[in-house]
Amino acid sequence: MTVFDQAPVADVMHKPSSHSEFAIIRRFFATSNLSFSREGIELGIGDDAALIEVPSNKFLAMSMDVLVSDIHFPLEADPALIANRALAVNLSDLAAMGAEPYCFTLGLVLPQSDEQWLADFSVGLEQLAKKYNCPLVGGDTSRGPMSISIQVQGLVDRNRSVRRSGANVGDKIYVSGTLGDAAIALLALGLDSHLGSEFSFSLSEPSPACLQFFKDAYFRPQPQIELALAAGKLFTSAIDISDGLQGDLQHILDESEVSGSINLDAIPYSKSAISCLNSENRLLAALFGGDDYELCFTVAEKNCVELESIAKELGVCVTCIGDIKAGEGIDYFSANGSAIEATVQAFQHFSATV
Amino acid sequence: MTVFDQAPVADVMHKPSSHSEFAIIRRFFATSNLSFSREGIELGIGDDAALIEVPSNKFLAMSMDVLVSDIHFPLEADPALIANRALAVNLSDLAAMGAEPYCFTLGLVLPQSDEQWLADFSVGLEQLAKKYNCPLVGGDTSRGPMSISIQVQGLVDRNRSVRRSGANVGDKIYVSGTLGDAAIALLALGLDSHLGSEFSFSLSEPSPACLQFFKDAYFRPQPQIELALAAGKLFTSAIDISDGLQGDLQHILDESEVSGSINLDAIPYSKSAISCLNSENRLLAALFGGDDYELCFTVAEKNCVELESIAKELGVCVTCIGDIKAGEGIDYFSANGSAIEATVQAFQHFSATV
Repeated sequence: MTVFDQAPVADVMHKPSSHSEFAIIRRFFATSNLSFSREGIELGIGDDAALIEVPSNKFLAMSMDVLVSDIHFPLEADPALIANRALAVNLSDLAAMGAEPYCFTLGLVLPQSDEQWLADFSVGLEQLAKKYNCPLVGGDTSRGPMSISIQVQGLVDRNRSVRRSGANVGDKIYVSGTLGDAAIALLALGLDSHLGSEFSFSLSEPSPACLQFFKDAYFRPQPQIELALAAGKLFTSAIDISDGLQGDLQHILDESEVSGSINLDAIPYSKSAISCLNSENRLLAALFGGDDYELCFTVAEKNCVELESIAKELGVCVTCIGDIKAGEGIDYFSANGSAIEATVQAFQHFSATV
Repeated sequence: MTVFDQAPVADVMHKPSSHSEFAIIRRFFATSNLSFSREGIELGIGDDAALIEVPSNKFLAMSMDVLVSDIHFPLEADPALIANRALAVNLSDLAAMGAEPYCFTLGLVLPQSDEQWLADFSVGLEQLAKKYNCPLVGGDTSRGPMSISIQVQGLVDRNRSVRRSGANVGDKIYVSGTLGDAAIALLALGLDSHLGSEFSFSLSEPSPACLQFFKDAYFRPQPQIELALAAGKLFTSAIDISDGLQGDLQHILDESEVSGSINLDAIPYSKSAISCLNSENRLLAALFGGDDYELCFTVAEKNCVELESIAKELGVCVTCIGDIKAGEGIDYFSANGSAIEATVQAFQHFSATV
């Protein structure tokens, strides 16, 4: 909140804040578009700490994600897209708790002070901040290899917070949206994927519209805030899918001490994924790809009609992909039989040996 | 809170969390020594977000600082000292608001997973976390150039929060502790300083005890939490001195729309600083050095006796160094006359031209 010590000279170990850095903060971050007032924010940017209120019937939910250049995004990507992605992945964590976005803080490390980059970056933040009434209330800047730390704060009714540990035997397992698109985006972006050398487009030349769709899936994930706020009361557990369905669902199963039975034929794919990849690669992307930032959640069977009705009204796609059962682990099944299951087993074996 | 995507393979763009990373989180951070329970912490590490309560008569204070290797600390430094410094500078921001430490989150970026480093780092965090009953409640890890983002949360009575904007004409200006020691530490550590080539020890060989004292001042800053909690009700304004007295006091003066008159002879120095540096260099270190993480605060004249009594009882050194006056800017004076004032002016001129 205070240091803002972006040392402008490469060989200086510690250079206190210069006037120009405060000017940068004021110009790009302490703006009415980004650091706007909202009820409950007593004090935002500009003191040693921000001060906020939390209503007595609410918990404050807090989640921090750190995005590092060339690990979580290409260094040369559009700064507005980097900003959008950085804030969206944090908001997705709030959605998984059923929490309403409240405010966020930003720790920004940059190799140099580039005014155009900062202007574009702040515009990328503003779009989501305004959409979710979630102002920037503080943070820090430093010189160094580019990274973006964001902590989002959210509010959730004390009796409505959604945990990973609440899934019950008999619940239905749902996912929002379509899965695998962000993992497929790495192919569209020409970047390496951990899904192996056979993970590739089935077409030699996917259409420009498909390529753009995948890039948007990667850089503009849509946190499922609206769904979580409208239907979170029906979720018995939830997680956001940041690491692939298998790994994230497993966290719910572990925390809830149950098992999952997944109908592989029910996994929802985008039209672009269906047109550009074969079924084995789509499945790899969905189960092991990551970066979807969709929700995986469980709902008691008696509430499924209400859930689907709410989702339909919101225009959000939700798909039932399986059931919670007693036991542990994930059991996959498919009408197509053993071929597709073999794909999963082969990847699990491949992963275990690399 | 969720991603934990420390990609272990250098050329992999995005590798979801591996089991080993979750093991690292559990082993080094989700421990009873660091992620301990405390009243009001509903949910700590292990879900999509932490959940905390905030009493209805309190504000939640939040401050984030990002420390980057080779900018804010030497990459090769003792990880326990790095951890201590990273948490201490954040706690210092809470002290400046008069807030009681509550909990913190950690965004840790490391070039590789080094178990010994992580073990030492977590011990460094534990010491301060336990001392201030401030558990780790969440965070994120990633592979990348080493940096440490910490956000501390604190609680402060709604009618007791201390702002930079509250100084009044007639108030006395105080600082805690001694100033300049951390800036002098750069000399002891053999690191570059921005204070110029003439900034040096006046002795050819400072004693080992002095060198250790300076290093401790740099790596083990003592956040003035106890002073702030006991005497914060008497502060009309406060800031923590992270960038040197001149710059930080100026923030109080700007926010409060007043001026400051500073008696340079009253600035408190450590015995080590007095024995190892000439008066001009001590002054440069105090005014322009930074990293002290002491408090600069203002107190109404009628409350000064009570303040000094509280500080004495705590064993904390506080020193009145000047007065708040009408107008703007800082007026320095000294019984030694113009020589020492010329030092300040010369440095200000030097700073303005580099």
